[in-house]
Amino acid sequence: MAGIMHTLDTLGIVLPEAPKPVASYVPAVRAGNLLYISGQVPFRDGSLVFTGPVPSKTSLEEAQEAARICAINALAVARGALDGDLDRVEQIVRLGVFVASDPSFTDQPKVANGASDLMVEVFGPAGQHARAAVGSVSLPLGASVEVEMILQVRP
Amino acid sequence: MAGIMHTLDTLGIVLPEAPKPVASYVPAVRAGNLLYISGQVPFRDGSLVFTGPVPSKTSLEEAQEAARICAINALAVARGALDGDLDRVEQIVRLGVFVASDPSFTDQPKVANGASDLMVEVFGPAGQHARAAVGSVSLPLGASVEVEMILQVRP
Amino acid sequence: MAGIMHTLDTLGIVLPEAPKPVASYVPAVRAGNLLYISGQVPFRDGSLVFTGPVPSKTSLEEAQEAARICAINALAVARGALDGDLDRVEQIVRLGVFVASDPSFTDQPKVANGASDLMVEVFGPAGQHARAAVGSVSLPLGASVEVEMILQVRP
Repeated sequence: MAGIMHTLDTLGIVLPEAPKPVASYVPAVRAGNLLYISGQVPFRDGSLVFTGPVPSKTSLEEAQEAARICAINALAVARGALDGDLDRVEQIVRLGVFVASDPSFTDQPKVANGASDLMVEVFGPAGQHARAAVGSVSLPLGASVEVEMILQVRP
Repeated sequence: MAGIMHTLDTLGIVLPEAPKPVASYVPAVRAGNLLYISGQVPFRDGSLVFTGPVPSKTSLEEAQEAARICAINALAVARGALDGDLDRVEQIVRLGVFVASDPSFTDQPKVANGASDLMVEVFGPAGQHARAAVGSVSLPLGASVEVEMILQVRP
Repeated sequence: MAGIMHTLDTLGIVLPEAPKPVASYVPAVRAGNLLYISGQVPFRDGSLVFTGPVPSKTSLEEAQEAARICAINALAVARGALDGDLDRVEQIVRLGVFVASDPSFTDQPKVANGASDLMVEVFGPAGQHARAAVGSVSLPLGASVEVEMILQVRP
């Protein structure tokens, strides 16, 4: 079993089938050694599991879990784009994390850690990334969190 | 007539003069074979044609048209940066689509399709891109939509 | 004294110690010749100096100053990632500027100029960049502005 798949197994993380985009774009595009992953929302088993702004509709803890699910979905997309071989990932380069937020909510970094921590759990130092985390007035399908990603990959 | 310009002609799409930035940045920057296009708003013939949040001030259908205009303006900028030769485009890599949204609006993907569909109409499979579409509480000059873009290009 | 550090000195700009990230990501990641800088907020001397939306809590002029501070912090991070040598910067490629905004505020480009103008002051033509400036309903720690950056650098 390849290294990263073994790590995921050890962590008890099961990557889903790569989620289908909800529109006319594609889940991932590679340009040279950069792989761009489209914004992912917290779909699990076909349902959007956390919706509405934080904290009035979704708690901080739930939003952190939502960010983790988005990150898992992003990895599932990356796996698909890399012919199933996540060991071709050299570095997680950047996460963009959008958090549906009440105007008074300012803990977007804590929410985003749900995604960031997953990357380090899975990839170790290669999972450390640059990040922008911001609040959004509303997100696609009412999602509480959306996460996009750029990875550096081996040919 | 070059291939992509012919396609635009067939589609009845007339690229405007590249819109001037409304601030001290520049419309496009190339780094290696990646071309970064600044965020474009729906200017047409010198006027911002769709303003205000969706759906209270601008309908879903109007916002889709706004996204398409942003995308056309982004292509106009790309054409200028590529010395007039859009056939140097190898791949549309990523669109970032910001939609001025009422808090209850969650159809940002449908709005963003106005931009995404244009790219596929013009470039075919090379127009398929990664995408992040999110809601914004407000956008420059009151625009209903803003679209930024990354392209992979030939030297 | 290296060229850019001399320019900063002439401009009276003192780069702080690179601000620590407020979460589990890292301040900067390099992928090939692109350097990605995490979103920076207006910390100065350890305090967040401008908070709340524009213009109800922070004026346009204050927000421009906030954007400039974010940009200075981003340069401080870049300096750290480049072993202290900002002369390795070939080009500022892209700024992402998020402005905490009241729903009626539409001057995000003027705010973002606080960051954009700094880059041109410091780097001249190499400081001209692509940009996306948008409104956010709220930002980390209540910041009025967040700025992320991509640079092209020499090995």
